[in-house]
Amino acid sequence: MKFRICRTALTEAVSQVSKAVSTKTTVPILTGIHATVDEEGLWLTGSNSDLTIQVCIPLRRDDKELVNVDTMGSVVLPGRIFSDIVRKLPGDQVEWDVDERWKTTLHSDQAHFELKGLDPEEYPRVPRFDEEQMFSLPAELLKSMIRQTGFAVSTSEARGVLTGVLWRLESGRLTFVATDSIRLSRKEADVEVPEELTLENVVIPGKSLSELGKILADQTGWVDVILADNQIMVRSDHLLFFSRLLDGTYPDTNRVIPKSGKTEIRVSTKEILQSVDRAALISRDGRDNVIKWTVKEKGVVQVQSAAQDVGSVLEEVDAQVDGEEVSLSFNAQYMMDALRAVDSDEIRILLTGTMTPFLIQPADREDALHLIVPIRTR
Amino acid sequence: MKFRICRTALTEAVSQVSKAVSTKTTVPILTGIHATVDEEGLWLTGSNSDLTIQVCIPLRRDDKELVNVDTMGSVVLPGRIFSDIVRKLPGDQVEWDVDERWKTTLHSDQAHFELKGLDPEEYPRVPRFDEEQMFSLPAELLKSMIRQTGFAVSTSEARGVLTGVLWRLESGRLTFVATDSIRLSRKEADVEVPEELTLENVVIPGKSLSELGKILADQTGWVDVILADNQIMVRSDHLLFFSRLLDGTYPDTNRVIPKSGKTEIRVSTKEILQSVDRAALISRDGRDNVIKWTVKEKGVVQVQSAAQDVGSVLEEVDAQVDGEEVSLSFNAQYMMDALRAVDSDEIRILLTGTMTPFLIQPADREDALHLIVPIRTR
Repeated sequence: MKFRICRTALTEAVSQVSKAVSTKTTVPILTGIHATVDEEGLWLTGSNSDLTIQVCIPLRRDDKELVNVDTMGSVVLPGRIFSDIVRKLPGDQVEWDVDERWKTTLHSDQAHFELKGLDPEEYPRVPRFDEEQMFSLPAELLKSMIRQTGFAVSTSEARGVLTGVLWRLESGRLTFVATDSIRLSRKEADVEVPEELTLENVVIPGKSLSELGKILADQTGWVDVILADNQIMVRSDHLLFFSRLLDGTYPDTNRVIPKSGKTEIRVSTKEILQSVDRAALISRDGRDNVIKWTVKEKGVVQVQSAAQDVGSVLEEVDAQVDGEEVSLSFNAQYMMDALRAVDSDEIRILLTGTMTPFLIQPADREDALHLIVPIRTR
Repeated sequence: MKFRICRTALTEAVSQVSKAVSTKTTVPILTGIHATVDEEGLWLTGSNSDLTIQVCIPLRRDDKELVNVDTMGSVVLPGRIFSDIVRKLPGDQVEWDVDERWKTTLHSDQAHFELKGLDPEEYPRVPRFDEEQMFSLPAELLKSMIRQTGFAVSTSEARGVLTGVLWRLESGRLTFVATDSIRLSRKEADVEVPEELTLENVVIPGKSLSELGKILADQTGWVDVILADNQIMVRSDHLLFFSRLLDGTYPDTNRVIPKSGKTEIRVSTKEILQSVDRAALISRDGRDNVIKWTVKEKGVVQVQSAAQDVGSVLEEVDAQVDGEEVSLSFNAQYMMDALRAVDSDEIRILLTGTMTPFLIQPADREDALHLIVPIRTR
């Protein structure tokens, strides 16, 4: 295995696959980065068994040669130190040379590194997909759907299937749902999909989606989504992302979403978010991070919080109020997560009572919603 | 105590004094911020008993009213939550009202906070200085002297006086010295000083100086330095910084500094720093973080490091070499700290042997030096 590669292209690719590289040493080979150079270019792979990221640096991009292959082959290099070295190498071109015992030489300008490599045959194989279950959507839309739902998954591993985000696809409508049973977030969008492709009970670990959101950060254009029995693959330009799916049946959440309520308010997203954020300064010092809203018919939301030994806060935010006066308490962090996920300047909140779930939606659209269960207080 | 204050001026002042506020609760009152409003303006004080920072927001700055006093008085407010609140308050003006039991109301636009305050009489008094022992220097120079020496103090509390930086003043020449006995850094400069003011054995805790460097970050102009028996005060525009001094006699370090050596090299600071930085990637994975230099008469420095189970690195950096060939090993982090502190594009290194201290200086000046003791290797 011997080739020459453009240093900046290598640095970028290593930084992408590093996001998946295992930091735990339970499976030692997974702390490494797998590299293969073949007739297409250099393939780098990082994996932590839940998720795998693979990037290809092609031989040429536009008019520039990126990889010049002398001898094809594979090797696994220790992940952390390899990525540190690549980032700090001088020069524009890296000469990469691997001997028959996987001893790897990286040479760039005056710097000359030798690393102990590992046998690439010990590295797990990347799953194969037959591309029967496939659809496409813009990278921007996928990122936005992840951002608007991913925070609501359960963080307790004991909750099994609730630590993931449910993907549902029916008649070309893609729906993401996440809930930890105190709150729920749902986002829908139309996607380009072959006739009759439906998805049910596809649940992707929240942690995998959070990494996917990060590696798609600078991506524009379209991505392909391909499903297999217990794996999902997301494919963008020269980048493959694999995640295992979660076992178990995701609960039916449609019936918990209220269709109507006692009180509906419309309010500036930014104003009510800043107000809750300030009130949370007091509640965070209390035990429970609880704040209280009192919705007044005259057209204000009173935001309140009090913690013994610290103090209290009271604010009034102007709002358009339809229906009964109502007051209720909730977890301030859950409210801030939902308000930050809303993509509209104005929100609509549907209150159903002091102890029943309330609904937060963009005022101008129905494709996103957040549900929060209030907290009982004295 | 009742007044109105410009929010942005308050935010900035609170962020400065917060740097000194204690996070430990061994002396509970020190987790608070002390506030006094009087005929000069609002005085804020934060302290952790080693160091104290006091800021005054004057009644007016330029043409703008900053503080409008109704009733003078003092209070202590819980530091962390108070500074969080101030940072997030809406509006341009904060109404600040304290009752006879120190219950404090902060009111700004629609936000209305109440905080439990504490009795200001319980807060330790700021030390008094008689200004006999005083000199002045530009803030930029003071920051630079701290930056070029502070990193070399001992981090082990057991080393007593070596955890501080020695300040010496003689015939208008100010010298800072720091050492942990494996390395030493020294920086000198001329300052404006009244005749016959000399300082000996004034040792300031390294942590205090590191904070001083941060709070002077944006300061230009001159600062006054005032000494008392066991305290130092640094005074800049509306900002007072106090630190206790360390007890004990600082060792005489002049005799350890070599006057001549076997080999002198001149090399680009940036090139040798980057080379050592890369070599440290390998040595950091070894036990000892040791790298090796071999200085060749032909005019190169070979930078090497090897760690079992990881690999090795070899680089050559062009240098002007006068004297014998020599090779020696040292702690890579110590070398990087010293090279980063040097203010010149080119450095001069004086090597005295494989096991004796070597000297690093800017190639064009004698007012700064760094000394490192090599490490014995097989």
